[in-house]
Amino acid sequence: MMKQSIETNSHPWVALEELIKAGNAKQLNEFLDGISPAETARAVSRLAEEERINLLVLLSPEDAAEVLHDLPDEQAADMIEDISPEEAAAIIAQMPGDEQADILADIDTVDAEAILNAMSPREAEKTRQLLQYAEDTAGGIMSTKYLAYPEMMTVGEVLDDLQIHNEAYSDYEVQYAYIISAEGRLRGVLPMRDLLLANRSKPAGSIMRSDPIRVRDDAPLEELIQLFEEHAYLGVPVTDKSGRLAGIVTRAGVMEASGHRAENSYLKASGIVGGEEFRSMPLAHRSFRRLSWLSINIVLNVIAASVIAFYQETLSAVIALAVFLPIISDMSGCSGNQAVAVSIRELTLGLIKPYEVARVFFKEVGVGLANGLVLGILLGAVAVFWKGNPYLGLVVGGALATNTVVAVCLGGVVPLFLKWIRMDPALASGPILTTVTDMCGFFFALSFATAVLPLLS
Amino acid sequence: MMKQSIETNSHPWVALEELIKAGNAKQLNEFLDGISPAETARAVSRLAEEERINLLVLLSPEDAAEVLHDLPDEQAADMIEDISPEEAAAIIAQMPGDEQADILADIDTVDAEAILNAMSPREAEKTRQLLQYAEDTAGGIMSTKYLAYPEMMTVGEVLDDLQIHNEAYSDYEVQYAYIISAEGRLRGVLPMRDLLLANRSKPAGSIMRSDPIRVRDDAPLEELIQLFEEHAYLGVPVTDKSGRLAGIVTRAGVMEASGHRAENSYLKASGIVGGEEFRSMPLAHRSFRRLSWLSINIVLNVIAASVIAFYQETLSAVIALAVFLPIISDMSGCSGNQAVAVSIRELTLGLIKPYEVARVFFKEVGVGLANGLVLGILLGAVAVFWKGNPYLGLVVGGALATNTVVAVCLGGVVPLFLKWIRMDPALASGPILTTVTDMCGFFFALSFATAVLPLLS
Repeated sequence: MMKQSIETNSHPWVALEELIKAGNAKQLNEFLDGISPAETARAVSRLAEEERINLLVLLSPEDAAEVLHDLPDEQAADMIEDISPEEAAAIIAQMPGDEQADILADIDTVDAEAILNAMSPREAEKTRQLLQYAEDTAGGIMSTKYLAYPEMMTVGEVLDDLQIHNEAYSDYEVQYAYIISAEGRLRGVLPMRDLLLANRSKPAGSIMRSDPIRVRDDAPLEELIQLFEEHAYLGVPVTDKSGRLAGIVTRAGVMEASGHRAENSYLKASGIVGGEEFRSMPLAHRSFRRLSWLSINIVLNVIAASVIAFYQETLSAVIALAVFLPIISDMSGCSGNQAVAVSIRELTLGLIKPYEVARVFFKEVGVGLANGLVLGILLGAVAVFWKGNPYLGLVVGGALATNTVVAVCLGGVVPLFLKWIRMDPALASGPILTTVTDMCGFFFALSFATAVLPLLS
Repeated sequence: MMKQSIETNSHPWVALEELIKAGNAKQLNEFLDGISPAETARAVSRLAEEERINLLVLLSPEDAAEVLHDLPDEQAADMIEDISPEEAAAIIAQMPGDEQADILADIDTVDAEAILNAMSPREAEKTRQLLQYAEDTAGGIMSTKYLAYPEMMTVGEVLDDLQIHNEAYSDYEVQYAYIISAEGRLRGVLPMRDLLLANRSKPAGSIMRSDPIRVRDDAPLEELIQLFEEHAYLGVPVTDKSGRLAGIVTRAGVMEASGHRAENSYLKASGIVGGEEFRSMPLAHRSFRRLSWLSINIVLNVIAASVIAFYQETLSAVIALAVFLPIISDMSGCSGNQAVAVSIRELTLGLIKPYEVARVFFKEVGVGLANGLVLGILLGAVAVFWKGNPYLGLVVGGALATNTVVAVCLGGVVPLFLKWIRMDPALASGPILTTVTDMCGFFFALSFATAVLPLLS
């Protein structure tokens, strides 16, 4: 019955809105079960804030946790922040440990603390530990859904446990069981296959493969990417500093984190900073986040443009220069950003190290000279064609050519430098690059013009 | 012995260079076995072109294929292009089918055809088929390493095959065997676990799970991402239009493709177009690729700046405006690019559809008005403070505020429009946005100034 009324409706969020208003938890849950996670995410992002709160409160904590699972973490965190800490704690208790930590990490510290306090002390303690891991480390990426058995448990007991919890384990991603000591230290790994072929009465510890490959919980994402490129593993156990098993990182999890980082680099380079933005967020929130980056940028822009103010006399004499200044500024920015993108990518792939400034500089000078020459001739030709003055062409084309070399070399080197001083290259390279190249571009054009002023007018 | 001499050398590429010069294939191979794939990639990218050719020719085809496996596809393709088609074919024959296709797809069509002709006809036919799949489809992402058995084969025969080829199958990513008909059509799936618990004399077809979830070879990446988000599968079989099993897509493979796409969006938005760039590529190649994008950009820039030329008289009268034009142009570009990035991301996540222009426009107008007001007041204040003329502040601030609204709305909408006409939003949004917002920005500032000209001087 429900299904039919939904199918005739082209927009699931209209139906969702109506069901929330009607306040029938059972119908609501049936409806959400019938649409895909992608549709759930779209429908929820279209609800008003109040309706989103009602949705979470109407559903059972378990169903609410399922809805939040379908949403991007930041959006789920936004919704959790809007309900009471007790309600939030009940929902979060239904999530696996790593998802709990991912969502709480995106919530205001004060709100997160209130939710943790409303959770059971044991659960809260576990989540607090996961919260300490940086996002781009094994601890931040790992899943806490893994199978671990004590050394002395027999093969038969392990198999029985697997049989009994078959359903609960069905979305566990790796086909290994881990063998741990009484203190939780990782002792060995047991492929499911070995387990099935072994004698039921033997202790699991006696057939395990000892001393398996493992990673430390603070291992950086780069190390994990390399590990999975090097080996065909599906998953690798993660241990803390005392060797206790803390979770597993899966190949898919590492690939996902790597994709997430690439996407974040793009967002940051475009000026979307401080977490991700969804259009479902409140206007003030979105506006403020974008402004925090723009307001730094406007200061840098004013500083760069102040160079022009020093050459007002030259500019008054050759007003045509005013047409070329924005072109030189924009084109140099583009050339420099190409070099920035290549450097960030080569850093991510591990093809260059932050100290290899000289190599990158040398590689970029060539491109800068070649492209500067071509672009300079093009722009110079436009100037000559427009004003019929070859000296104007030389000034404008010469400034663009020179500044292209500066921009390309700087663009190649700045990300390495930022990485070296442990700043985020994706975030800061663009503003630094454009400020410096704008200043240099204005300076080259206007000082070249000043030098040959009598020839220009 | 080798190991020791390597460890004392801090740069593996220096050692690699020496070994290539010495021309000892065995030592070379031992050295490459001893360093990680990441180090191999770095070392190879530092070799001169000639040394890279020598490296591939010196090694056995099998070892050469292993080296290429460690490199990014584009770099491997570059190296393959430089050796003879016969040598290339011998190396490529050592790779799994999907890797063959990935590399040949990155090679000039003429060169790729020559290599395919040098391969065995059967192998070439298989690779040609894989080459037809678009990169972002199930066929382009799938792995051809999967286990498939005919329905009538017995469980015992399957288990024996697994035992015999244990080593060869060790890097197969999924823990399922697929059951196919005599014509190769997918009939069912057989989890390893079921296989181990079954009676050896039964036909595999009798214990398989029939009619398993599958995807068509032309299913787009978005569909695959949604599928793996919805279900906890490790891998899903891919079938062609007649239902024949063609490969498997794994969760990790899909996540990797999704990350690759995010990275490509970033590169394209930064003006690195037409395949990826590595600093190990020849200068002319790198310069030309970057120029192809820059030369379009300079034309757009000249068109935009030509607006300034129409207002030379106003500009002569109020030369201070020349300082603010590049600021207005750059700031509007930044604001617009933020909206572009959010739209591209929401499109990728499936949170908005290309036809939802009105919704995005409406959401962006609010942000544009708020941020335009703040930025306009800031820039206006700078103008008043500098020149002491409140009207200059109104002109400059008003122009930036108005243009911010235009840029933000346009930035939000352009990616949807491009997606709708099946163009790549990451590639074209930036240039379209900045051209239009530059023109509008110059027009607003200069026409506002012209309107109140007597008050400005």
